[in-house]
Amino acid sequence: MMSDSAFRIEKDLLGTLEVPSDAYYGVQTLRAINNFKLSGITLSHFPKLVNALAMVKWAAAAANHELGYLSAEKHTAIAKACERITNGEFHDQFLVDMIQGGAGTSTNMNANEVIANIALEELGHQKGEYKFLHPNNDVNMAQSTNDAYPTAIRIGLLLGYDSLLDALAKLRDAFAAKGEEFAHVIKMGRTQLQDAVPMTLGQEFRAFSTTLTEDLDRIRLLIPDLLREVNLGGTAIGTGINADPRYQFLAVQHLARITGHALLPATDLIEATSDMGAFVLLSGMLKRTAVKLSKICNDLRLLSSGPRTGINEINLPPRQPGSSIMPGKVNPVIPEAVNQVVFEVIGNDLAVTLAAEGGQLQLNVMEPLIAYKTFDSIRLLTRAMDMLRILCIEGITANEARCKDLVEHSIGLVTALNPYIGYENSTRIARIALETGKGVLELVREEKLLSEETLEEILKPENMIAPHLVLNDLTKH
Amino acid sequence: MMSDSAFRIEKDLLGTLEVPSDAYYGVQTLRAINNFKLSGITLSHFPKLVNALAMVKWAAAAANHELGYLSAEKHTAIAKACERITNGEFHDQFLVDMIQGGAGTSTNMNANEVIANIALEELGHQKGEYKFLHPNNDVNMAQSTNDAYPTAIRIGLLLGYDSLLDALAKLRDAFAAKGEEFAHVIKMGRTQLQDAVPMTLGQEFRAFSTTLTEDLDRIRLLIPDLLREVNLGGTAIGTGINADPRYQFLAVQHLARITGHALLPATDLIEATSDMGAFVLLSGMLKRTAVKLSKICNDLRLLSSGPRTGINEINLPPRQPGSSIMPGKVNPVIPEAVNQVVFEVIGNDLAVTLAAEGGQLQLNVMEPLIAYKTFDSIRLLTRAMDMLRILCIEGITANEARCKDLVEHSIGLVTALNPYIGYENSTRIARIALETGKGVLELVREEKLLSEETLEEILKPENMIAPHLVLNDLTKH
Amino acid sequence: MMSDSAFRIEKDLLGTLEVPSDAYYGVQTLRAINNFKLSGITLSHFPKLVNALAMVKWAAAAANHELGYLSAEKHTAIAKACERITNGEFHDQFLVDMIQGGAGTSTNMNANEVIANIALEELGHQKGEYKFLHPNNDVNMAQSTNDAYPTAIRIGLLLGYDSLLDALAKLRDAFAAKGEEFAHVIKMGRTQLQDAVPMTLGQEFRAFSTTLTEDLDRIRLLIPDLLREVNLGGTAIGTGINADPRYQFLAVQHLARITGHALLPATDLIEATSDMGAFVLLSGMLKRTAVKLSKICNDLRLLSSGPRTGINEINLPPRQPGSSIMPGKVNPVIPEAVNQVVFEVIGNDLAVTLAAEGGQLQLNVMEPLIAYKTFDSIRLLTRAMDMLRILCIEGITANEARCKDLVEHSIGLVTALNPYIGYENSTRIARIALETGKGVLELVREEKLLSEETLEEILKPENMIAPHLVLNDLTKH
Amino acid sequence: MMSDSAFRIEKDLLGTLEVPSDAYYGVQTLRAINNFKLSGITLSHFPKLVNALAMVKWAAAAANHELGYLSAEKHTAIAKACERITNGEFHDQFLVDMIQGGAGTSTNMNANEVIANIALEELGHQKGEYKFLHPNNDVNMAQSTNDAYPTAIRIGLLLGYDSLLDALAKLRDAFAAKGEEFAHVIKMGRTQLQDAVPMTLGQEFRAFSTTLTEDLDRIRLLIPDLLREVNLGGTAIGTGINADPRYQFLAVQHLARITGHALLPATDLIEATSDMGAFVLLSGMLKRTAVKLSKICNDLRLLSSGPRTGINEINLPPRQPGSSIMPGKVNPVIPEAVNQVVFEVIGNDLAVTLAAEGGQLQLNVMEPLIAYKTFDSIRLLTRAMDMLRILCIEGITANEARCKDLVEHSIGLVTALNPYIGYENSTRIARIALETGKGVLELVREEKLLSEETLEEILKPENMIAPHLVLNDLTKH
Repeated sequence: MMSDSAFRIEKDLLGTLEVPSDAYYGVQTLRAINNFKLSGITLSHFPKLVNALAMVKWAAAAANHELGYLSAEKHTAIAKACERITNGEFHDQFLVDMIQGGAGTSTNMNANEVIANIALEELGHQKGEYKFLHPNNDVNMAQSTNDAYPTAIRIGLLLGYDSLLDALAKLRDAFAAKGEEFAHVIKMGRTQLQDAVPMTLGQEFRAFSTTLTEDLDRIRLLIPDLLREVNLGGTAIGTGINADPRYQFLAVQHLARITGHALLPATDLIEATSDMGAFVLLSGMLKRTAVKLSKICNDLRLLSSGPRTGINEINLPPRQPGSSIMPGKVNPVIPEAVNQVVFEVIGNDLAVTLAAEGGQLQLNVMEPLIAYKTFDSIRLLTRAMDMLRILCIEGITANEARCKDLVEHSIGLVTALNPYIGYENSTRIARIALETGKGVLELVREEKLLSEETLEEILKPENMIAPHLVLNDLTKH
Repeated sequence: MMSDSAFRIEKDLLGTLEVPSDAYYGVQTLRAINNFKLSGITLSHFPKLVNALAMVKWAAAAANHELGYLSAEKHTAIAKACERITNGEFHDQFLVDMIQGGAGTSTNMNANEVIANIALEELGHQKGEYKFLHPNNDVNMAQSTNDAYPTAIRIGLLLGYDSLLDALAKLRDAFAAKGEEFAHVIKMGRTQLQDAVPMTLGQEFRAFSTTLTEDLDRIRLLIPDLLREVNLGGTAIGTGINADPRYQFLAVQHLARITGHALLPATDLIEATSDMGAFVLLSGMLKRTAVKLSKICNDLRLLSSGPRTGINEINLPPRQPGSSIMPGKVNPVIPEAVNQVVFEVIGNDLAVTLAAEGGQLQLNVMEPLIAYKTFDSIRLLTRAMDMLRILCIEGITANEARCKDLVEHSIGLVTALNPYIGYENSTRIARIALETGKGVLELVREEKLLSEETLEEILKPENMIAPHLVLNDLTKH
Repeated sequence: MMSDSAFRIEKDLLGTLEVPSDAYYGVQTLRAINNFKLSGITLSHFPKLVNALAMVKWAAAAANHELGYLSAEKHTAIAKACERITNGEFHDQFLVDMIQGGAGTSTNMNANEVIANIALEELGHQKGEYKFLHPNNDVNMAQSTNDAYPTAIRIGLLLGYDSLLDALAKLRDAFAAKGEEFAHVIKMGRTQLQDAVPMTLGQEFRAFSTTLTEDLDRIRLLIPDLLREVNLGGTAIGTGINADPRYQFLAVQHLARITGHALLPATDLIEATSDMGAFVLLSGMLKRTAVKLSKICNDLRLLSSGPRTGINEINLPPRQPGSSIMPGKVNPVIPEAVNQVVFEVIGNDLAVTLAAEGGQLQLNVMEPLIAYKTFDSIRLLTRAMDMLRILCIEGITANEARCKDLVEHSIGLVTALNPYIGYENSTRIARIALETGKGVLELVREEKLLSEETLEEILKPENMIAPHLVLNDLTKH
Repeated sequence: MMSDSAFRIEKDLLGTLEVPSDAYYGVQTLRAINNFKLSGITLSHFPKLVNALAMVKWAAAAANHELGYLSAEKHTAIAKACERITNGEFHDQFLVDMIQGGAGTSTNMNANEVIANIALEELGHQKGEYKFLHPNNDVNMAQSTNDAYPTAIRIGLLLGYDSLLDALAKLRDAFAAKGEEFAHVIKMGRTQLQDAVPMTLGQEFRAFSTTLTEDLDRIRLLIPDLLREVNLGGTAIGTGINADPRYQFLAVQHLARITGHALLPATDLIEATSDMGAFVLLSGMLKRTAVKLSKICNDLRLLSSGPRTGINEINLPPRQPGSSIMPGKVNPVIPEAVNQVVFEVIGNDLAVTLAAEGGQLQLNVMEPLIAYKTFDSIRLLTRAMDMLRILCIEGITANEARCKDLVEHSIGLVTALNPYIGYENSTRIARIALETGKGVLELVREEKLLSEETLEEILKPENMIAPHLVLNDLTKH
């Protein structure tokens, strides 16, 4: 049996509830914990979101103090509480499920209650003695969930996206390094899975680097652009009801200082309160990066297919035994895992889209799902890119001989001869090669269609993998 | 300049409008044509839907006549008009866009007006002389759009799904025939794009046949199961307001007779009026078949990749020159087109899902989109499967020598030797083969690990491609 | 510093690794734990999947023993280990991330290793002494990941779907009970959010019950139908290589006995190894139920909107304070949370679809994601339906007076008078009512269009909410 | 019977075919027409794409002429042909289905053949006399489908997006105008469909305008940013094989001149050949705008719900009779149609995503679907926005009295009194109001909690719909 002191009694509009004595959260958080047993993923799974909630409360307290609504004592206590949370303390008190009804009210109250109780202890009071400092009246002063929560989501994403950028930049660099390492490896390019024309393996890996650079540059600009405008100060529906006219500007100014991010107060607060457009586009951008990663991983799996009955141009580093029944089998497990992360991210984008579409009138009540899925996609992509780089890309080796061999036996080589022997000859040679299994060069030599010197010149890698002038007076017809 | 007689004046609640004199549709159809200029895809693009609308009106007229609400003369004229439409006449009069507001009212009125005007001419009157026979009062008698339209969609799908089944059955047969044709072609199986163990090309194609057979069987049962319950008789919201209590049973009975499909009257008409569950599941089933087709086409493109730098186990019949710049290149254009159809069908499934979710209270106002996308997916899949069968599958040939060669050089062959030479030896042989480029059999022979007779026995195709008892007393350790 | 005995050394193809001494998992599980740090959701989050893995191993051991390949001693130890796992022990040892490369190899090896080590202890050996009983040679005997893992997923879902059915049945019953409770409450039906015709609140709730009953019946049949065919015995690619010809039948027979589910051995094992069609359709079915739940919750939110500026026909039980800034506000948090779960389930369906489409050749390497998202959707829906029932539906009350008032002031009432006063009069009355704000009945009385007796008769609820014969000789014109 | 002269014989790698004599397209187009009978939507449905194809060919011819590869005579004839196409001639000759295999080869050849035949006639030759001017050798000179086709798609989108911007700008303006028109209409704001606090109807419509302005600004920058980099000059796989080193720069320069758009040559042509990232993000952006439109239309349908049993704050202009069975019913058909367009656009975005993910190695063979769905989404959104503006927004009127009445009877009004009468009083008043049905102001007056002057001041619209200082010395506690 638990003693009486295991609980304290807290009260809200709906009545009283027993809150565990050592809990920093309060009655409203407890109701939400009991109401929403859904994903099992609590707020504490996303530390940047928890930090962001504390920062919003911190900024609001600073503004309220500056405007004379909050005493110096309370302000100091609240600020201290918020600081401790942003330093990583008390995160285990953020226990509401990421999926929740109420448009984030439970998240907001979880923050209000935890901060109030930390602050109470700072002031020498007991947890729950809200007459000295109140979660709603003091911590939530001049805020509504409808402005504090969306602002915190934005801040949380701003605090965390550097990890994403970092993973992306390092992965890009790893591909670029391989691009240089493989710059001399001549191989066949393929279009529609059919033999096309020569290129280098370095060009192929450089292209992976290039395509990720585009996303790196774009995300670096897009995320702050989408998220820096916050609706703090709009209170319930964006009209700023019951807020001091000076509050919006001051609160956002403090928040910018605390977070270190250049924030802008929303100009149309009514619109900013309900609009989820920023998240839809952000999710679309993450989806784009995910799709690129999936394409790259599909390519890596194709290029490393074999070892004997596939393409086998590259080797992925082995990471675990591939089969209990097939001795020696090693599988491309890392790219395979990335593909699956990508599919989840695309599913998340759909969930975000549906939630954004589901908003009604002055608020989007589905915002908790939007927040959950956005944080989740960023985390998944970050982890997947780190995994891909460290456990796969950095260890890739090239099968140069195999690459060279495929070029020499390829019929696609005939394309390079096209300007010299003519389209008709080329087509004929290609057909004979296909029917007889002979090589294109072998046939050209048999028929003495070109001198050895000319052939050698044409087949120089530098001449096949880039635009070049036709080499002699055999001009295009 | 058009003479006055180029138009007739028609009137509705909103006022009058000039309807082209030769049009069988009337004022409400014209309003809808003018209102909804969206997809450009009109009702007439889906003849089975047009026929189904006529059948519903035909059945309702029969019931109304039987109950004494509709005169014999009017009934005969309406029935005749409906019959002509189901025979393919007047389809060009169904001009409303498939995407429309109003939950199908415009489609329903398009049918009511066209039928009324055909019937008027049958009775010797002019188009537009609705005092003799009225689109609403007579053709639409005892119906609401909210029961007539959903019923017509179901009937339209029931009338048309045999084409889908036919295309699916023929494609299945084509794969089965190739399964038999290639039954003797031994090849390497691949898991995770890595060499696995031997199988036959026939087994591979038979599996395509098997997987489509499952869908054929399932669709054949599922579509009538999902669609045979109709809400005709529910009128506005399923309460059957203003309908004769005997009407529902009679109308559905007539409709079953006219359509030749075993229909059931909905037992909970309130539920049946707004529920779109049948379409969500039908769309999910179409998506499943689409996904299977995509997987098959991906495989066909992989297996035919090359000719020199890919797998090249099979040849797809060439259908068009593949490149203007690369002589002799032929691409797998047919499977590529199927993949894209599949992606569209998956997109359609999402649109259907969103529309189903968007229903509110007593009606789903998004039903026109559901109808459009469902008919579209069935048509696309039917066409894609016919194309795939005729232009690709039936002409596929096997590269037997290539298949055999890949088996013999594969390291995966060692799996078959595993029970005889032990896992340790197998792993060692696999590693040496990989490092030296030698063949597994070559190494086994070099090391004299097995007698030629045993090797020959093990490597018999029939022993490698199915479970078998270990051949001699060298049992598993 | 940890002493040497904190670890044991284990070895696989890639070398050695230090495994914690108290871990029942082994080297391959540890590699997978290190490789895949992605979702953070481990196998142990889905106990039914863990149990199913143990059951598959149990059945395989029984078959192998019966065929003489596994000694009685080993068989007994393995069986005991599997039994203990199915009793809920050792679940904390299943630590691989649900998202993983390798097509489930890591999950399979996690099971093999944990079972081997439990069995070793049963036999009086130390963990890791695999010479006495080996994860691969003994626990995994005659299996490949490619047959054991897909079979375990199916079994796991079969073991768990009764919770889903139970939640669905109870929710259905709760709606049915409200349907009866509200059977006498007359209210206005709405189509396209516009006033339509009268119905009862009971009819509305009964329709919710009906629509869920359809899904209950369908899921009850569909899930076993989709999942009972298992590919155990196919080994690597479905050819059953290295398996005894009698093994498939015996193993499935034992598995059926152990699980208590009627299982079927797959007839085309090649097809069964790579096909994901069952999961696509299962996910589509879950999506359908989810969409229905979303529609219902959207309706509940609409019907309870207000209290003063919305529809306000019903009251949802308050579950938490709705606003810190708006006194007295209570929000429909439970349906809102359900909506969000639904959006996640729809996103999951997309992820499943993408993963199914991504399969290649003899295996679908994306199956771990399919398993993850399928288990996740079932769990989310189960929890959401329980939450919806207990915390919302069972406490709903009706605002009878408000419902009645809306009917009496509705213009839609005129529809019921239509057969008596004619369409022209009805339209005129409707227009006057709309312009003047007067009630339809008020106007009919003013104009003395109908006697009080007739009006009373027409307006009897039982006459307005179901088909009925026209009451007197004022027949339809 | 057709005479022999009804056809001309044309030949390609696969043999000969009879091409209709009057056709400007040739044998390869005809093969594609026969191969791909899928969507029924031909290239000619998207005139900007057809124009763009002609512009690319025009620019390539100019570059080739300048480099000395194409004679003045041929150049003049090709340029003239391209010019005529861009003037709208010959569009009916672009008959290949938008869904096609071959990565756009059929589209490219359709353009090559039509241009060649027009040019041949310009030169005084017959259609089909390709010895004088050849579709491949001359029109397609120095191009591959793989650079010409992606470039044309980008140009086509650049040529057409001003219509989208125009529709968006006009719709935005229409909302802004209503925002001003309704600036004085005080109404209740709603969060979570529950009564919140007062705002003006003008604020609500201005927010619609604001949110669309954000998209207008973003699309205006994003589309050229995404599309201006073209891969013309990369030929087959981006290595520029067989192209003159000076060609890329010249061709892009000419294309910029001809199109009037600032184009950039791609810096990594390998990457640019296969990457579809631009289209994924563009589609994501269109989806965002679509989602906003859907939310707005959902709101319009909610706000106009009724007339008697809904919110009824605004009136949408009637566009067509709403029901055949319910006299006087008018439905919000225009927003309903927009919702459905949005669902289709979201489905299109998924199709684009799937197609982008499906690219392999040096090319994305699914690009035709990406092009089709992107053009389709832009056209659908453009038409939907024009429809919404003209047929709905511009005719919306406000029910001022209803709006005012709802405010006065709302319990949410108590929020405005909160700073004056305290949270405890406010909550009590709210509860009594809810229980008794009395008004908040009525109760405050009864209890004489505030003077009439104070009440009047607080309830001034300008004080309720924006932040304001507390009015007297009754400060916040």
